[in-house]
Amino acid sequence: MKRLNELTATETVATIVAGKTTCEAVARACLDHIAGREPQVQAWQYLNSEQVIAQARALDKSGRRGPLIGVPFGVKDIIDTCDMPTEYGTVIHKGHQPKRDAACVALSRKAGGVLMGKTVTTEFANVTPGKTRNPLDPDRTPGGSSSGSGAAVGDFMVPLAIGTQTTGSTTRPASFCGVFGYRPTWGDLRTTGVMEASGSLDTLGILARSVEDVALYRDVLLGVAPEPVASDIPAPRIGFCRPYFWPRIEPATQNLLEGAAQRLAHAGARVEEVKLPADYEQLETAHRLISGFEMARNLTWELENHRASISEKFREGRLKDGLACTYETYCEMRDLVARCRRMLEPVIAKYDVLLAPSAPGVAPVGPDPVPHPWVYMMWTTMHVPSLTLPVFKGQNGMPIGAQLIAKWNDDRRLFAVSRWVYQQLII
Amino acid sequence: MKRLNELTATETVATIVAGKTTCEAVARACLDHIAGREPQVQAWQYLNSEQVIAQARALDKSGRRGPLIGVPFGVKDIIDTCDMPTEYGTVIHKGHQPKRDAACVALSRKAGGVLMGKTVTTEFANVTPGKTRNPLDPDRTPGGSSSGSGAAVGDFMVPLAIGTQTTGSTTRPASFCGVFGYRPTWGDLRTTGVMEASGSLDTLGILARSVEDVALYRDVLLGVAPEPVASDIPAPRIGFCRPYFWPRIEPATQNLLEGAAQRLAHAGARVEEVKLPADYEQLETAHRLISGFEMARNLTWELENHRASISEKFREGRLKDGLACTYETYCEMRDLVARCRRMLEPVIAKYDVLLAPSAPGVAPVGPDPVPHPWVYMMWTTMHVPSLTLPVFKGQNGMPIGAQLIAKWNDDRRLFAVSRWVYQQLII
Repeated sequence: MKRLNELTATETVATIVAGKTTCEAVARACLDHIAGREPQVQAWQYLNSEQVIAQARALDKSGRRGPLIGVPFGVKDIIDTCDMPTEYGTVIHKGHQPKRDAACVALSRKAGGVLMGKTVTTEFANVTPGKTRNPLDPDRTPGGSSSGSGAAVGDFMVPLAIGTQTTGSTTRPASFCGVFGYRPTWGDLRTTGVMEASGSLDTLGILARSVEDVALYRDVLLGVAPEPVASDIPAPRIGFCRPYFWPRIEPATQNLLEGAAQRLAHAGARVEEVKLPADYEQLETAHRLISGFEMARNLTWELENHRASISEKFREGRLKDGLACTYETYCEMRDLVARCRRMLEPVIAKYDVLLAPSAPGVAPVGPDPVPHPWVYMMWTTMHVPSLTLPVFKGQNGMPIGAQLIAKWNDDRRLFAVSRWVYQQLII
Repeated sequence: MKRLNELTATETVATIVAGKTTCEAVARACLDHIAGREPQVQAWQYLNSEQVIAQARALDKSGRRGPLIGVPFGVKDIIDTCDMPTEYGTVIHKGHQPKRDAACVALSRKAGGVLMGKTVTTEFANVTPGKTRNPLDPDRTPGGSSSGSGAAVGDFMVPLAIGTQTTGSTTRPASFCGVFGYRPTWGDLRTTGVMEASGSLDTLGILARSVEDVALYRDVLLGVAPEPVASDIPAPRIGFCRPYFWPRIEPATQNLLEGAAQRLAHAGARVEEVKLPADYEQLETAHRLISGFEMARNLTWELENHRASISEKFREGRLKDGLACTYETYCEMRDLVARCRRMLEPVIAKYDVLLAPSAPGVAPVGPDPVPHPWVYMMWTTMHVPSLTLPVFKGQNGMPIGAQLIAKWNDDRRLFAVSRWVYQQLII
């Protein structure tokens, strides 16, 4: 039998609603587990047991119900919370206490969730690592920039965590930590109270341990009544996409993905090879320049007032490049992206989902939290919803994800198909 | 000769750079003027003379130059400032002191601007008025939601002010207060540190007293080196647009616009009638539902924790409607908007600018800060750049604007053509 901290969010809610446990008991189980594991994993930037227990007790006492009742959730520390500091991964904002909750935090609490604490982010959700280790191997990175969110969910510290994604900041830690990682259709989930890295690319992200949990949490963050994941779907149409960077995917991962495509076809899916136009190769440059241009402006206050406290790697790399980018180049790059989005429309319309790599291989050894941006940036730039499924094991038994991608605003179908795919590949 | 507070930003910079005045003298001239007029106009939510003088003196002492050197600017009080409170027009955030400057404020200071203070906004930049009166007639509204920004620039308290626009919150006060009001191409100017009303529609706005000032300030807020407004342009191609709501525009204003179109044609412009498809009539509903859906989620923390402190008009109107809107309806409305944007593309491509009403007439008597949203919402929803020019006088000599609209990312051409148009209509 699962321990309380090992339950998914959906299971937690069912158990509490059935009167078999309490919000407080669930919170304590998570806190106990964290107490044992945190010295090694280091997933939390801020965690105060008393605050957690107080929230859980208040929920128990109130008799309140809600779609997330009693579910402990972690929040990436670039997301504002009215009762916990929010430091954006930098000493510049050490101890900073926002006045209000970000919309996503307030919506989670409204649904009955228990805010467990703030999860570690890289500096400004960018390249410089935080303290978090991969929960499955402390010598490896958990992936970033939502490092703590991925590690906390992967280590059964919480069933749900909010991350964000500008390049691969949810997909990457999901793949490296062996959890589900969801990037919504761009623009759907409000980012009020979330530090903007690059507004034309940023979204929230959800880290979870089941498709049902992702779907549930998305509805909560949309501020709508939850709908169950459709279960009686026909075998889906799947476009198997080996993008231009396929040669950079490790051969073992290539084999796993090709094997998965075959297995899904055997299970009844219509699987076809999808080729994308050559223009997509330019998206790496476009993504780098667009995000750099926007970030460098967003961090003007920090650059002007706390320049020396920004890591050299970030300041002299991404920020310097972003400041050097002209408006004309920025516009050219946006035009290229818009063209690629239009080209994707007829391609993606032929399938329920695309199947593509989530990562080139397992989490690398060493501290770099944001390796191989090229594998993640493409779908992010396209604004399409994506779900990483923890379906593969690679070197040393470490996890590797597979990514399913759907068309814009087709997130619900993405969930239904993802569940079907996950069942074929895991069971 | 103009007094220092009456100079445009461009003139202020030239005067300071020529050594004919100082940042401090300009700041004092503005403060003196404000001291006399503020009891009647009430444009400022926060203004501290000592802070202003200290900034100006520091600039004088440093010998710094910059494209906005010594230019006093006002900032709408939904925009964060690290050294002045930011209250979002609500008692809920009374005295709230952000940690950092919004990107637009930091960029203004980096360019040498002097932050004069925080200008009055309506509650959460929505329907409930602040204290500001129209500087040209205290019985009339200055327009909102950027009420203080429009009034402060119109009254010569500052040459520049930042506003925002989700419906008509820059266009409206510009038209009512007799100043230039610029809404940029959506997504161009970073809104980091600006309260999100409805992210898919929100932009910054610039209130100014010349086209040159608008162009200068836009470059500063883009974080790029300023470029002069092109002056040797050929007579432009102008599409005269009488949208479906034309019958709701007051007959006197209709006459003014038709007269202007004729005058521009006489001056050499190629002026043609532009008709938009009937689908545009549905944009009022789309705008109301999309913005309502997003606002209601963005204000979850306030609704859950300070419900009674939100004005009933806002809470039981826009917010209630927004909460009741389903995700399916929200998506339908977004699809409609996307369709209308695509339909606009070939229409707008044939012209340098479109000419359209900025307002049905002069600022109405009474407190309603946000009348006739229908006239403003259309271009906002289309994401195109727009500039309101103070070219008409209506009832009691009160100002009425005319709006020029360009295609996406064609903001520089919008400025060049606007200057040409302004010269034809005013001189």
